[in-house]
Order: sequence, then structure tokens, then C-alpha cells
Amino acid sequence: MSKPHLDFWFDFSSVYSFLSAMRISPLAKEAGVDVTWKPFLLGPIFTAQGMKDSPFNLFPVKGQHMIRDVKRTADEIGVGFTWPDKFPQSSVLAARVGIVGLKESWGQDFARAVFVAEYSDNKDISDQAVIAGILTKLKIPVEATAAKAQSDAIKGELRDNTAEAQKRGFFGAPTFTTQDGELFWGNDRLEQALRWAKK
Amino acid sequence: MSKPHLDFWFDFSSVYSFLSAMRISPLAKEAGVDVTWKPFLLGPIFTAQGMKDSPFNLFPVKGQHMIRDVKRTADEIGVGFTWPDKFPQSSVLAARVGIVGLKESWGQDFARAVFVAEYSDNKDISDQAVIAGILTKLKIPVEATAAKAQSDAIKGELRDNTAEAQKRGFFGAPTFTTQDGELFWGNDRLEQALRWAKK
Repeated sequence: MSKPHLDFWFDFSSVYSFLSAMRISPLAKEAGVDVTWKPFLLGPIFTAQGMKDSPFNLFPVKGQHMIRDVKRTADEIGVGFTWPDKFPQSSVLAARVGIVGLKESWGQDFARAVFVAEYSDNKDISDQAVIAGILTKLKIPVEATAAKAQSDAIKGELRDNTAEAQKRGFFGAPTFTTQDGELFWGNDRLEQALRWAKK
Repeated sequence: MSKPHLDFWFDFSSVYSFLSAMRISPLAKEAGVDVTWKPFLLGPIFTAQGMKDSPFNLFPVKGQHMIRDVKRTADEIGVGFTWPDKFPQSSVLAARVGIVGLKESWGQDFARAVFVAEYSDNKDISDQAVIAGILTKLKIPVEATAAKAQSDAIKGELRDNTAEAQKRGFFGAPTFTTQDGELFWGNDRLEQALRWAKK
């Protein structure tokens, strides 16, 4: 029997993706589930569903509550959280670099560092200097990585991930999918998705 | 020190309120938290926020997923679930009778029975005969209870609950509130709300 597996679909612009990115590795290890990290873009999916902005901005009463909700969960899991001055942020650059890293060995560390920059340290992750700073800290060559991230292959992979997400009926992030085709939406479904993957 | 306390705000039309109603009593007992059940009406709150129908109907991709999501959670907690032919259902009658029952001794049993009728047994809870059947099964006098439910005092209490919910920035159900003013939204925040209440 092959090892249980879960796909973790996330967008670097999504604050609940941040919470899952900070939690998933130890939980999956404890559960004995392999996880594949899959960056995608929520923007085109929201647009296709008639939403022209983040749901946080479209539904302000709910949006204000969500900041408090994220803060409480971040406190419980021991992760610093500051609502960024700029929201939502463009996640295209981070996602492309993330895909490069996930093919190499540093993708998950990079992803966590990007989320921390954005949601703990109030940085703008669409800024090339912020991404370069993260790469440098991880001892990853900046120029060579930037060149790979702008290659047709990497751009195409991000487009493909996004197209697949849309085709499969995603409507938010994070989303978890299992080998047998189940879809779980939201950081609060991570544990349930891991239980399902083990069935 | 007084015993930790949580208010459980629910609408009989809300399927996630159903899940919480079936879970909250044993969890609260284990946590040592007293719970007050507070029926209110989501309809006026959604209308004030620009939504003229259930979010399940307004966002169909998400709505279809939610049915699957509820089914999985209902299976995990061991509760039967069938998506009702009629959704959303008017919950005014059930809420008024529920408020009568919560002042007497049978309110929580009635509430659970209403939710089971609606979401396990595909009954229409706006139907007086369905409510009368539930009361009869609980050995509660139907005529006398119906008269109380239509009194100005009970109607006023439901209006007051709804007005308070709106004033406090509710945007969905279930919602849990603590003595120190924290608001938690959603069945998936029940455990977190209980932890907070105990702080």
C-alpha cells in the first residue's frame, strides 16, 4: 500500500493559507501523510465567480471579524500575526519562485518565510527586493532563481495549477485534495483532510 | 469565581447551527462551561448586508461544496444528514417555540429535534404540523405552547435577539459569544470558543 497523500493548494495572498502553511508539516508527519505543496492563484477564480476583490473587502463586517479570527488562531499556534498595510497582495512573483523551490529542496522553507514576511512582518511580497531578501537568507542564488522563475515552464506550471483548481471547483484557499478526489476547504479542515487521506 | 459561560446563537434555518446543536452539550460539559442557547433570525441580518438569499444559493460553487462538507462532518460526529428539498426554510415558528421551551425545561431537546427533522429527516420546519409532532413526542402540550409562542413577549424576545445579533456585528450562524465580548463564528470555532470561555 502506498503512503497516504494530500495535496495542499495555497495562494500566497491568502491569510488562511498562511495559517495552514505554518501548521501542516508537523501535523502531516504525525499523521503519516505525505504532502505536496501546490501554489495557485485565487484571483482568476474569484473573478470567474463574480468577485472582483478579496471576500474580506467585499463583505466588510465579515472581513473585520476575520482579522480577529486569524489573530486568535495565530496566538493559539504560536505564530506572530499583523494585518498587513497592503491587502490583498499580488502573489504571482512569490508563487513562481515557490514553484522553482518546490522542485528543488527549499520550497517549503521559502513558502513559510514568504508568509511570515507578509503576515507577521508587514512586508509587501510583490516587491522583488523582499523576495530576494528571503532567498538570500535561505542561501539560494537570487539571480539564477529569478531567471528560472520567469521561464515559460514555471509560468506555465502556475497557470496549469490555477486552471486545474478552477476546473475542480475551488472557491478559496487553502484547499486540500486527496487521491480519491475529495476537496476540503479552509485551514479549519486541515485535520479532517489528514484523517480522510489516511482512510 | 463564577462558572465559565458561553452564549450559543443559532438560527434553525442554518445547517452549521445544526452541527453545533448536536455537538455543544457534551463538549461544554466536558469543558465545564455553561451554555445559554439563543435563537435568532439570520434573514434580516443577511438582508442588511446586501444578501437576499442564503449564501449557499448566492455562491453555487461554494454552496455545492458545503453540502459535501456538512455530510463529512455529520458522518464524523455520527449524525444523519440529508440535504432538505426546501432550503432555506423559514425558522420563525421554530424559533418562537424554542424560546418558550428554553424558558421551561425542554428547549434544548426541542431544538435538537427540530434540527434533526429538518436536516436528517427532510421535514419542513415551517409547517405547524411538524412542530406539533415534535412537541407531542416530547410530551409538551401543543395548544398551550403555540399560544405562548405567539405572545407579544416571545415575539419581542426573538426580535430583540436578532437586533442584538445585528448590533454586535454577526454575519452568520452559529455564533458563539463570551462574557468578555469575543465573537466566534462557525461550527468549526466551537472548541476554540469553549477554550476562550475558560480563560
